[in-house]
Amino acid sequence: MEAASILHLLILLFLGLHLMLLTSTWYPLNKSEFLLSCSQYSSWCTSKNRILAKSNVALESPSQKHINHLTESPKHPLDPLTLQEITKVRTILSSYPPFISTFPPIHSISLYEPEKSRVLNWKRGDPLLPRQAFVIVYFEAKSNVLVVDLGSSQVLSHVVNPDSGYPILTAEDMAIAINLPLANAEFNKSIIDRGVKISDLKCVPLATGWYGPNEEGRRVINVQCFSSEGTSNFYMRPIEGLTVKVDIDKREIVHITNTGHGIPVPKSTNTDYRYSAQNKPLNMDPVNPISMEQPRGPSFKVDGHLVKWANWEFHLKPDPRAGVIISQAMVRDSESGKLRRVMYKGFSSELFVPYMDPSEGWYFKTYMDAGEYGMGLTALSLVPLNDCPRNAYYMDGVFGASDGKPYVRSNMVCIFERYAGEIGWRHSEESPYSGMQIREARSKMTLVARMVASVGNYDYIIDWEFQMDGLIRIKVGLSGMLMVKGTSYQNVDHVPSDAYMSGTLVSENLIGVVHDHFITFHLDMDIDGSDNSFVKMNLEKVETSPGESPRKSYLKAKRHVAKSENDAQIKLKLYDPSEFHVVNPNKKSRVGNPIGYKIVPRGTAASLLDVHDPPQVRAAFTNNQIWVTPYNRSEEWAGGLLVYQGKGEDTLAVWSERDRPIENKDIVLWYTLGFHHIPCQEDFPIMPTVSSSFDLKPVNFFESNPILRAPPTIKGDLPICKAMASA
Amino acid sequence: MEAASILHLLILLFLGLHLMLLTSTWYPLNKSEFLLSCSQYSSWCTSKNRILAKSNVALESPSQKHINHLTESPKHPLDPLTLQEITKVRTILSSYPPFISTFPPIHSISLYEPEKSRVLNWKRGDPLLPRQAFVIVYFEAKSNVLVVDLGSSQVLSHVVNPDSGYPILTAEDMAIAINLPLANAEFNKSIIDRGVKISDLKCVPLATGWYGPNEEGRRVINVQCFSSEGTSNFYMRPIEGLTVKVDIDKREIVHITNTGHGIPVPKSTNTDYRYSAQNKPLNMDPVNPISMEQPRGPSFKVDGHLVKWANWEFHLKPDPRAGVIISQAMVRDSESGKLRRVMYKGFSSELFVPYMDPSEGWYFKTYMDAGEYGMGLTALSLVPLNDCPRNAYYMDGVFGASDGKPYVRSNMVCIFERYAGEIGWRHSEESPYSGMQIREARSKMTLVARMVASVGNYDYIIDWEFQMDGLIRIKVGLSGMLMVKGTSYQNVDHVPSDAYMSGTLVSENLIGVVHDHFITFHLDMDIDGSDNSFVKMNLEKVETSPGESPRKSYLKAKRHVAKSENDAQIKLKLYDPSEFHVVNPNKKSRVGNPIGYKIVPRGTAASLLDVHDPPQVRAAFTNNQIWVTPYNRSEEWAGGLLVYQGKGEDTLAVWSERDRPIENKDIVLWYTLGFHHIPCQEDFPIMPTVSSSFDLKPVNFFESNPILRAPPTIKGDLPICKAMASA
Repeated sequence: MEAASILHLLILLFLGLHLMLLTSTWYPLNKSEFLLSCSQYSSWCTSKNRILAKSNVALESPSQKHINHLTESPKHPLDPLTLQEITKVRTILSSYPPFISTFPPIHSISLYEPEKSRVLNWKRGDPLLPRQAFVIVYFEAKSNVLVVDLGSSQVLSHVVNPDSGYPILTAEDMAIAINLPLANAEFNKSIIDRGVKISDLKCVPLATGWYGPNEEGRRVINVQCFSSEGTSNFYMRPIEGLTVKVDIDKREIVHITNTGHGIPVPKSTNTDYRYSAQNKPLNMDPVNPISMEQPRGPSFKVDGHLVKWANWEFHLKPDPRAGVIISQAMVRDSESGKLRRVMYKGFSSELFVPYMDPSEGWYFKTYMDAGEYGMGLTALSLVPLNDCPRNAYYMDGVFGASDGKPYVRSNMVCIFERYAGEIGWRHSEESPYSGMQIREARSKMTLVARMVASVGNYDYIIDWEFQMDGLIRIKVGLSGMLMVKGTSYQNVDHVPSDAYMSGTLVSENLIGVVHDHFITFHLDMDIDGSDNSFVKMNLEKVETSPGESPRKSYLKAKRHVAKSENDAQIKLKLYDPSEFHVVNPNKKSRVGNPIGYKIVPRGTAASLLDVHDPPQVRAAFTNNQIWVTPYNRSEEWAGGLLVYQGKGEDTLAVWSERDRPIENKDIVLWYTLGFHHIPCQEDFPIMPTVSSSFDLKPVNFFESNPILRAPPTIKGDLPICKAMASA
Repeated sequence: MEAASILHLLILLFLGLHLMLLTSTWYPLNKSEFLLSCSQYSSWCTSKNRILAKSNVALESPSQKHINHLTESPKHPLDPLTLQEITKVRTILSSYPPFISTFPPIHSISLYEPEKSRVLNWKRGDPLLPRQAFVIVYFEAKSNVLVVDLGSSQVLSHVVNPDSGYPILTAEDMAIAINLPLANAEFNKSIIDRGVKISDLKCVPLATGWYGPNEEGRRVINVQCFSSEGTSNFYMRPIEGLTVKVDIDKREIVHITNTGHGIPVPKSTNTDYRYSAQNKPLNMDPVNPISMEQPRGPSFKVDGHLVKWANWEFHLKPDPRAGVIISQAMVRDSESGKLRRVMYKGFSSELFVPYMDPSEGWYFKTYMDAGEYGMGLTALSLVPLNDCPRNAYYMDGVFGASDGKPYVRSNMVCIFERYAGEIGWRHSEESPYSGMQIREARSKMTLVARMVASVGNYDYIIDWEFQMDGLIRIKVGLSGMLMVKGTSYQNVDHVPSDAYMSGTLVSENLIGVVHDHFITFHLDMDIDGSDNSFVKMNLEKVETSPGESPRKSYLKAKRHVAKSENDAQIKLKLYDPSEFHVVNPNKKSRVGNPIGYKIVPRGTAASLLDVHDPPQVRAAFTNNQIWVTPYNRSEEWAGGLLVYQGKGEDTLAVWSERDRPIENKDIVLWYTLGFHHIPCQEDFPIMPTVSSSFDLKPVNFFESNPILRAPPTIKGDLPICKAMASA
């Protein structure tokens, strides 16, 4: 028996024991209040090195089923890797020859989804498709991308350094980075010099981006620190001018920048946002409790990862990188009653968050949160009743730690029905000319799937909202803390007129730096089938000819079918407006219209950085608001697979340069939702949520209004409620 | 005694008798279920000539107080004219010498608001300011604009034909228009020729706009007709090609256009939208009842027209032209607890709805719904539980009919608190580097004031939503029916490639014509005082100099204070973005920032018509998305006071041409929210609501996040609910 096999056996034994322990001793599995959580599952989880995921609030939703993750098995080809499967991947990789002597840190582990055609052909009751894992490890200073087959226990493919960048940071990378400076005398001195106690120090690991050849060839990260003295909101107390660049792999400090000595650490006054730290009442009249209530319970059903509600069915899974992935969204036809395909896969593919300060400690702050930190990895357990209403169902995430062990992120996603007092459709007819008296109105109910990523200071609330009229609204909310800069100024009046402030003085000695947020969504639309076309319906002004009409001008909708990718690189223009349709050119409606969905942008922002600026090259996927690419299994991450320190060689913009044909093909729509953020005092010390959204909306997809026959709400539909006795 | 005085006396006697009858015999005033309504109040209301306002649904909101409009008296200087006051205005005008022999039709009657300075100085408990009425009558073929003082019973001012246009249509104007063709043999023959029974005929009075000198000097209107055979939704059965132009005052037909004989009246199949007319079930899984519940009742208070909720106070009144007017909106400071001024007056000032078809029967369809039909006059009673949730409070409108008699539009406005599962602010802190475990989230509650105008086929849902963080969201929803055009085509495939279709074939023989909607809001912002400035915070791209930074570019917020009106005529640009602040230049925050609010556009559309096209000249207020004017009591209606057939001589664009100074002045902000609408099959036979919005948002107005101290929702806050037994 080879050494590798012995090790393999030992690992299996260890894992078996581990699982036995899990199932037999540690967990009261039969108790309904039991919630699996990261902290209970993996030794990594209990260390300071891991992002914890303990659920500290008992859930009481009537629809909530407690999943036993220990025994959970996949039911659908797109179901995420289970706890047992992640464990098995670790086992396979442990005996994989290149890794036998040194088990490399796992930076990413997720389901390698079966080929789209196979998933589409799969039906409930069919045997499950082969289960495979997509794994990125960092080994011998190289990024290794592997596909592991769980059935055969084989590594099916193994590619080394496919690109310039590095994989997503692990918790250990971050721990290394923030601990290294603490062992450095110069660093410690600089902290003490500023009057900050080491015990109050909170340091954060900041992705460096890529700024030229100097930083190539090694994984580096910038560490900046804050004082938590007197507040839980250390983000508002930056130690300005101190940046430690760390080589993660060599575990050494590359460089310490120590400037900004005249800049005090801003005070902790009024920075704490915790309710327990508030000592004054709110200056407003009290508001009586209000709640969305469903005494008969929610009407959606969750079966594993399949969600069914009203006329919708879709697959929803937590993902370490994207946060949430919606797959195979289908809507029931209001006429035929048949389920019809709308979207094969939709998710937030990448983020780009450039800060607008070119100075030493700030220029590099141009984050790509999905590929650098992971929107799913940073999504923590939701706060019941406050993040999601009482009627919410909570879904856990099951992820792998860098040691290959699985852990559970409990209550990571919530799903709930919503009634917000909105009107689905309405008309009153009571004119002097009609002689009719009609009052018809329908209240609107929707289904929301939500997750919130807390990427350091910022919180991204991502909602997928499904409407009965076939519309899907994708909404992004921003809350959490500003990334702030210390300054010597206490008042705007003290700032010399020629001094440059990269943002707003939001409190004494504190600048909220101007920045942007871009969230790029991958939307693999499959309108009634895989082969679709992208159509621009341009509203053009037409001037009438003399004598033609008393009107001089009117608008005409002109149809342009995009032939290739270049035709579908869209910058939105208020004065040259279009609708953007994804249609099935092979199907037509009863009266001959192409069947489609349109993407409806709402409020958004464009990136204005120089296209040759390094961060913009890396985030070139924000060069347009809309792109359309032919479906390609490997083109999922708009900033590239390996984003960390990547040079932008593998972005959506690069793929799209090939100008491939996209007419009557399986195509993917990409949309970037943007925000410019000039901070203001109201954002201090924590920001009221700002949100924007876009819609995917049926356009000649249904023969007529699909909610025409929806019944009105009548008094008998409403519950009888009383105030809780304890309230 | 002069004849006029005798008449006056007779009228007074009649009115007295009328009121006696009202109070003594007709109405069970003490019964709580009693709701005053148009049909009970005025003889006009029971005739076919009037828009009815019967409330056919009993309201059960715990907060609902039944106002006795007969005895209602104004409490606040901005309160709308009461029933008694409208009656008094009629009395005064009846004895006003010019009108003694012929009492002219009243086209508009509303409060003539006291001067702004007097209203601002008025405090609760002070004697009410003089009550005056602003009245527009049409007399001897001229528009007469009068101010009537109720205290002195005097006409204070009387201006004849101040402008080219005519006042808002009366119900009688419309009745005249639609009845005239019925007495015309040519018209009747054309109807019968098309196989339509006269008894199924529904004709609508369509504002003509203004298209050159031919149409000047007389009030004209276009009548087009539909068949209601087999459907309540006659709008979907146009009799295409038949347009009757009517001279309203001469009561004669000017011209009949009778073309389109090859075009059939589209079938009634699937056009009815009433629930009672549906005979198939909805093809979707049933959805359990869901409701916003407040077992302790709403927490807002309505005192007459003053609304108080959480940190907000504002005055709300129904208005015949604007629909709803919000006045003196003030928010309580989260630090000082003092009420601070935000907006003196906000309302939808004008609409512009151009259809994009230059042909004979269509070119003129370029409606200005507020000034031509009245957003308040066309706002009907809301449908409880469907238009507004159970916890809504309903406010009635009290308007004057053209004979000067008052009537009540019951339940015209609803006010409700909203919890939509949204997050006010949040942060989770649980990173490997912070070592903290914090979960703080706050659910968001808001207050909504809603009205819905049914201007013929279209329904405009207008919401004013107040948030505790100081934000005001103004939202416009569109529902109701498309304005459709008959066509001989049954299928898109039959349309020759060179044929022009002005829209989408939404059903057989039916084109949904492309059109726009623009809603222009008058927003008299008074940030902490009347004198404000308008500031453009332009985000400009700055290129770094060589060696300055590894970054090539960044954005810099540059402040431009608008000096005069031209500086504040704004076309929004995605690639040249700005924030738009209204600030108080005389006050600064603790750290020296100007105190302000910003207007935050979201999804919108711009008018692309030729600026010299007659409809665009009339609607020149849509030439920019934002305008700022110095406060001028008479500049309230963006399309002019007299819009009907107006030539565009009195628009916001004309006023603004004067380029008046606006820095540190009492200024008014104007914003136009736009929609392009390319119809689709889903809009047939009634449209699912499409909506967009914009925000007024505090920017350095508060010293910090004003909802920082808001408590989280806890379980004890939630009600205990059970399903209704009858359900």
